[in-house]
Amino acid sequence: MTSVFLEDLDAETYSAIVAEEGSTVIIPTGATEQHGPHMPLGVDAMLSKAIAGVVAEKTGAVVAPVFAYGYKSQPRSGGGNHRVGTTSLGAAALTGMVDDVVSSFLSQGFAHVVILNGHFENYQFIYEGLDNAVSRARVSSTSSRAVLLSYWDFVDEATLEQVFPNGFLGWDIEHGGVLETSLMLLLHPEKVDMSRVVDHPPAKLTPYDIFPEDPARTPASGCLSSAKGASAERGQLLLDAVTTQVAAALDGELSLEKITLEVS
Amino acid sequence: MTSVFLEDLDAETYSAIVAEEGSTVIIPTGATEQHGPHMPLGVDAMLSKAIAGVVAEKTGAVVAPVFAYGYKSQPRSGGGNHRVGTTSLGAAALTGMVDDVVSSFLSQGFAHVVILNGHFENYQFIYEGLDNAVSRARVSSTSSRAVLLSYWDFVDEATLEQVFPNGFLGWDIEHGGVLETSLMLLLHPEKVDMSRVVDHPPAKLTPYDIFPEDPARTPASGCLSSAKGASAERGQLLLDAVTTQVAAALDGELSLEKITLEVS
Amino acid sequence: MTSVFLEDLDAETYSAIVAEEGSTVIIPTGATEQHGPHMPLGVDAMLSKAIAGVVAEKTGAVVAPVFAYGYKSQPRSGGGNHRVGTTSLGAAALTGMVDDVVSSFLSQGFAHVVILNGHFENYQFIYEGLDNAVSRARVSSTSSRAVLLSYWDFVDEATLEQVFPNGFLGWDIEHGGVLETSLMLLLHPEKVDMSRVVDHPPAKLTPYDIFPEDPARTPASGCLSSAKGASAERGQLLLDAVTTQVAAALDGELSLEKITLEVS
Amino acid sequence: MTSVFLEDLDAETYSAIVAEEGSTVIIPTGATEQHGPHMPLGVDAMLSKAIAGVVAEKTGAVVAPVFAYGYKSQPRSGGGNHRVGTTSLGAAALTGMVDDVVSSFLSQGFAHVVILNGHFENYQFIYEGLDNAVSRARVSSTSSRAVLLSYWDFVDEATLEQVFPNGFLGWDIEHGGVLETSLMLLLHPEKVDMSRVVDHPPAKLTPYDIFPEDPARTPASGCLSSAKGASAERGQLLLDAVTTQVAAALDGELSLEKITLEVS
Amino acid sequence: MTSVFLEDLDAETYSAIVAEEGSTVIIPTGATEQHGPHMPLGVDAMLSKAIAGVVAEKTGAVVAPVFAYGYKSQPRSGGGNHRVGTTSLGAAALTGMVDDVVSSFLSQGFAHVVILNGHFENYQFIYEGLDNAVSRARVSSTSSRAVLLSYWDFVDEATLEQVFPNGFLGWDIEHGGVLETSLMLLLHPEKVDMSRVVDHPPAKLTPYDIFPEDPARTPASGCLSSAKGASAERGQLLLDAVTTQVAAALDGELSLEKITLEVS
Amino acid sequence: MTSVFLEDLDAETYSAIVAEEGSTVIIPTGATEQHGPHMPLGVDAMLSKAIAGVVAEKTGAVVAPVFAYGYKSQPRSGGGNHRVGTTSLGAAALTGMVDDVVSSFLSQGFAHVVILNGHFENYQFIYEGLDNAVSRARVSSTSSRAVLLSYWDFVDEATLEQVFPNGFLGWDIEHGGVLETSLMLLLHPEKVDMSRVVDHPPAKLTPYDIFPEDPARTPASGCLSSAKGASAERGQLLLDAVTTQVAAALDGELSLEKITLEVS
Repeated sequence: MTSVFLEDLDAETYSAIVAEEGSTVIIPTGATEQHGPHMPLGVDAMLSKAIAGVVAEKTGAVVAPVFAYGYKSQPRSGGGNHRVGTTSLGAAALTGMVDDVVSSFLSQGFAHVVILNGHFENYQFIYEGLDNAVSRARVSSTSSRAVLLSYWDFVDEATLEQVFPNGFLGWDIEHGGVLETSLMLLLHPEKVDMSRVVDHPPAKLTPYDIFPEDPARTPASGCLSSAKGASAERGQLLLDAVTTQVAAALDGELSLEKITLEVS
Repeated sequence: MTSVFLEDLDAETYSAIVAEEGSTVIIPTGATEQHGPHMPLGVDAMLSKAIAGVVAEKTGAVVAPVFAYGYKSQPRSGGGNHRVGTTSLGAAALTGMVDDVVSSFLSQGFAHVVILNGHFENYQFIYEGLDNAVSRARVSSTSSRAVLLSYWDFVDEATLEQVFPNGFLGWDIEHGGVLETSLMLLLHPEKVDMSRVVDHPPAKLTPYDIFPEDPARTPASGCLSSAKGASAERGQLLLDAVTTQVAAALDGELSLEKITLEVS
Repeated sequence: MTSVFLEDLDAETYSAIVAEEGSTVIIPTGATEQHGPHMPLGVDAMLSKAIAGVVAEKTGAVVAPVFAYGYKSQPRSGGGNHRVGTTSLGAAALTGMVDDVVSSFLSQGFAHVVILNGHFENYQFIYEGLDNAVSRARVSSTSSRAVLLSYWDFVDEATLEQVFPNGFLGWDIEHGGVLETSLMLLLHPEKVDMSRVVDHPPAKLTPYDIFPEDPARTPASGCLSSAKGASAERGQLLLDAVTTQVAAALDGELSLEKITLEVS
Repeated sequence: MTSVFLEDLDAETYSAIVAEEGSTVIIPTGATEQHGPHMPLGVDAMLSKAIAGVVAEKTGAVVAPVFAYGYKSQPRSGGGNHRVGTTSLGAAALTGMVDDVVSSFLSQGFAHVVILNGHFENYQFIYEGLDNAVSRARVSSTSSRAVLLSYWDFVDEATLEQVFPNGFLGWDIEHGGVLETSLMLLLHPEKVDMSRVVDHPPAKLTPYDIFPEDPARTPASGCLSSAKGASAERGQLLLDAVTTQVAAALDGELSLEKITLEVS
Repeated sequence: MTSVFLEDLDAETYSAIVAEEGSTVIIPTGATEQHGPHMPLGVDAMLSKAIAGVVAEKTGAVVAPVFAYGYKSQPRSGGGNHRVGTTSLGAAALTGMVDDVVSSFLSQGFAHVVILNGHFENYQFIYEGLDNAVSRARVSSTSSRAVLLSYWDFVDEATLEQVFPNGFLGWDIEHGGVLETSLMLLLHPEKVDMSRVVDHPPAKLTPYDIFPEDPARTPASGCLSSAKGASAERGQLLLDAVTTQVAAALDGELSLEKITLEVS
Repeated sequence: MTSVFLEDLDAETYSAIVAEEGSTVIIPTGATEQHGPHMPLGVDAMLSKAIAGVVAEKTGAVVAPVFAYGYKSQPRSGGGNHRVGTTSLGAAALTGMVDDVVSSFLSQGFAHVVILNGHFENYQFIYEGLDNAVSRARVSSTSSRAVLLSYWDFVDEATLEQVFPNGFLGWDIEHGGVLETSLMLLLHPEKVDMSRVVDHPPAKLTPYDIFPEDPARTPASGCLSSAKGASAERGQLLLDAVTTQVAAALDGELSLEKITLEVS
């Protein structure tokens, strides 16, 4: 019963891990959200869980059950919350979940909590829950520390150039695009149907939000750019770049001992 | 890309399902909780997800991503929230999650929401969230309906006698016992290690709770009864009994058309 | 001005009680809920207050003002929240009240708080409020302790056999039945009209809840079983059994000194 | 089983009352708070309940179970929340209770809800809960109406001169003084011990609050003025003045038909 | 860059102030509320800010950004929340703002926080937020202290006689009346148009509130009394009285060293 | 008494504006946050208020009182919440404020609400409050609409090149830099002291957040880039670009009639 995923660990094995010096748990967070006709609704949760798994192996951490639901999708980063299939949490529920789960891990004895986010709109609400949980925990245990990150922020320039040879247009329009599709082709190829990719130009997004949302403002495909250039090879480049850099960052901040950096 | 699990469906397939008359989504709810030395922390989520999957196939429903975290474990039904590995939500976060997710499914167009609970302590907090969400939804759509159930409440007397030939002592002490272990042996045998089962007498539980909890009041194994009698065969008996009866109940209450009852 | 009910005590007498070693306050919790045509809406509050009073005399505790409103009545235990007369609190208000009142008693100096519940649906929400209040209080005073119980869980088998000579069918259908009516006949006989008892078979309850509720699923009387067998004598048997056992439990857990157990 | 107190009514009688045109329920609100050495902690709840009962008889209303706990006592009106015996709710719990209970009464069918307050510090928090509940209720039922009042605001000048022949110094220092003590001597004489009245000059209150409170700023008696001048006769004058004026106000605002004004 | 208003201070200057012994920040609180045809919507915020500024100069304190929005205006003190122009917060938002801002100032190092209120209906909700913030802060820093006041409570009898030569009728009807108008004529004369004052008798207010509000119950002008007697001279009398007395009170409670009392 | 700032308008003038077809209110949101040694703590509120004023003049809107406090400052966009002078709201208070104020404006009769944000970290929490308020408002008034924007997102490429002739490095490091300082030099020159600008290289920010924050990771100046290149001329370029583009966007989305675009 060995695994980096704690839902697969028995209580005794888990207890031993928590008791180690510098013990670290990574919480992957995703969403239930439409990702166009070629990918399933669970993309964000699947990717953050898989990436967390690789990082955990590199760093000696364990991975908590993924947050399968995320904050309301927004047109400028995910197409919008009005699309069928997108099933979201409000701010209070998401922030409360983060606070409760992080508080529980810190009180059980973990020295560090890392939240690895895979859904753009989650970030600020996770920040609030994590800030509240760590502030409270440190009243009695000043060694408690936490890190919050979104995985795509760790893709370096060199990798970007390889994955987007025609130029990278920004993370905001990557919803259902080359990044996510390439990673899915690598990690869950049976859940991607490239024949259904809609090859349209990148969405032209307004620099503001309107309420209520206007469905005509984003592409009918539900994606903000075309996934046509996606491939498992590019997925591997992205996965290697992200996990190596995240592991290095955690090692640097948290002085984790088991990290062995292997730049691909 | 066909599946009863909506996280595996693309947005177009999903949209077609939601638009069907009488469309039904089942939300499985579990917990992250120690289940002794012979089973992993994710038992409650794994079982409610698997059972929901079978019910969905019988009834033509789809299954939402499982709620992997549940309400605080209590000594009289789960061993207690103080045990390492048990990672829980408070009332507000759990109730808020249920409210948000159910509201979203109803507003997307589902006619019915079913919550299939797999962690005893969740029930009342799900009730609150579900009651609030349905009450609000029905202001504008009086056809919205919902059902809440815990799966073990559907095991009939005949099955109980087969599974517990020496007498059934009550669901309260089944945490980590024959019921859950048999189902896991059937559904996830690679995650159970029967050689680590601690064979102790059923826990003698007080008819009250104390705060703070006293760890000495429940067995050191983390289980409330011995799983020694568990087997995949008994798991099959339980699974058949539960899913047949749940499907029949949903058919009766919601007039679902695709149900084909097959009493095992 | 001597009384076990603190609302009847002057501030000086009360202050002296709080300052005693091991000082204990019992908070009775009930509901405002229909109890059929033969009993008043205030049954749950009246009974929990009266039982708390007897327990307080046996143990040297004082009794706080009863919580007269409770959580939403449910069909499987109280007939349902849709019935006229049933006036309920949501989860947040009930949990918040428990937290505030318990926190206040602990900060005033009580060593122990006991919540004696008289309305089935309250239990989990009280648990949440009590858990939160005690956890916070123990940051500064590790001697603070609390107990939570529902009074009917203390009726022993021998008493059950005497009170239900034809067999006991479960607490869930006792709403407005023999237990509550017998206790009311003993404690508030002028508020019971046995000529109005509706003598129908026990309610057949589904093992699940539906939203919105279907009024046709529970008996029109508002009771879940017949109170025909109720009597003041049976009320006395129940009261003695409950109060003796509760007092013994509190003595055991809290080491109260003034308990004199007198098994009836 | 006839009574103006709904906790004493059976469900059938109650249902008939609710269904009447212009049906009105009065919710008395009090507190659990020290009232000096000569009166019990429950004064505010006892008085608001008794006054509501008389008003109900004059107007044909029924009285809901009293809110026995109130908002934090403040030095300028009640001596302060730091005094032993004073057991208070925070804003969220009190406001939530009001909202839930009022919403329930309106949805059951009452045309009017009246809240009759007996604890100064409650007023604004009740206002918030009542405003929220009525605003929501009126979306579907525009005939729903509510009234909020504190009973002492209905004592007329002529009565004040009779009750305070040496001059009335303001309601703010009446905590534990002549008003409350006279009403208690009339309504619950066995709960008052006039021999324990501390005869001190009226408290000199600062026109501001400090945090944390300074216990030395209010009289050690816990009262803000002397109750020496209290008598049951004065209690009768006050009760008559209040109930007559409140009944007249409700009649005027709500067009209640059963009011028979009898100025004492 | 010297100012008593901290929004005008650079971070270095501000840091030095916070680090001083006995450092004090005054938070002025107002509202956005109609004040009749002769004064602007921002009166309450403008006056509390200006008064706080004078008090800060007398006492060596700094002034935080004013709370420009306040609690729901009520007919008996502000005309009512139903009037166009009145833009209010509910209880939770106002209380939360106070709690967060006060907690932040105390954690930055201020020894004292003073809230100077300029909108009647705010008081109790500020009390709740301030009580919660100070209680929490004192767990780690027992020197933290706070004061809450409404500025009009500091006008002495002699000043009242000068400002209201025909007799003072009570603060409750001063909304848009002589007090506020005189202070505005002194502090922001360009924002007052005395030619538009509606000279009507004082509003006759009921001693209770009704829900929903009846617009006919308060004067159509939006003011509760006539501002005809207002003048800048009277504004000066009021300002001097208030600021001198507030400064003296703060000096007395908080032992501020820089106060130089100059009774006008 | 004419002004675009509604706090300066009398109730009658304001009422007439609200009643106009397509009436629009702009709510500027800022923060109280350190902005280095050369600018005051109120920069964000001052700038969003001033920009909103210009936009209001271009579009015929009015401007609501600025939100002077914002969400917790973060190192990657504002230096961090741990810096003295930074005084922040948590998520619940900020979201609640937005919800309450927007709901009030819509219920008073405004057709459109625009929130013009001036503090990076506010955006998602405003989104939540605005989404909730508009969703609720549209149940009864389907014409209600809202827009949310941060002003810097409207600076076009041509302007960027003029303002940052050596290359623009990203909005994230503009805290206390050329953008904000140039605008302050234009709008509030007396509140800027260019002699105190610390000329350091742009901050190198990590692509993640840590808890608790490490003060050593951002420049000691409190700014994330040097303001040396700031000038009032550049401020004018920025102001013109922003206000012209924002006005055009509002015109396009809301069909405002009074807009006269004048590209500077």
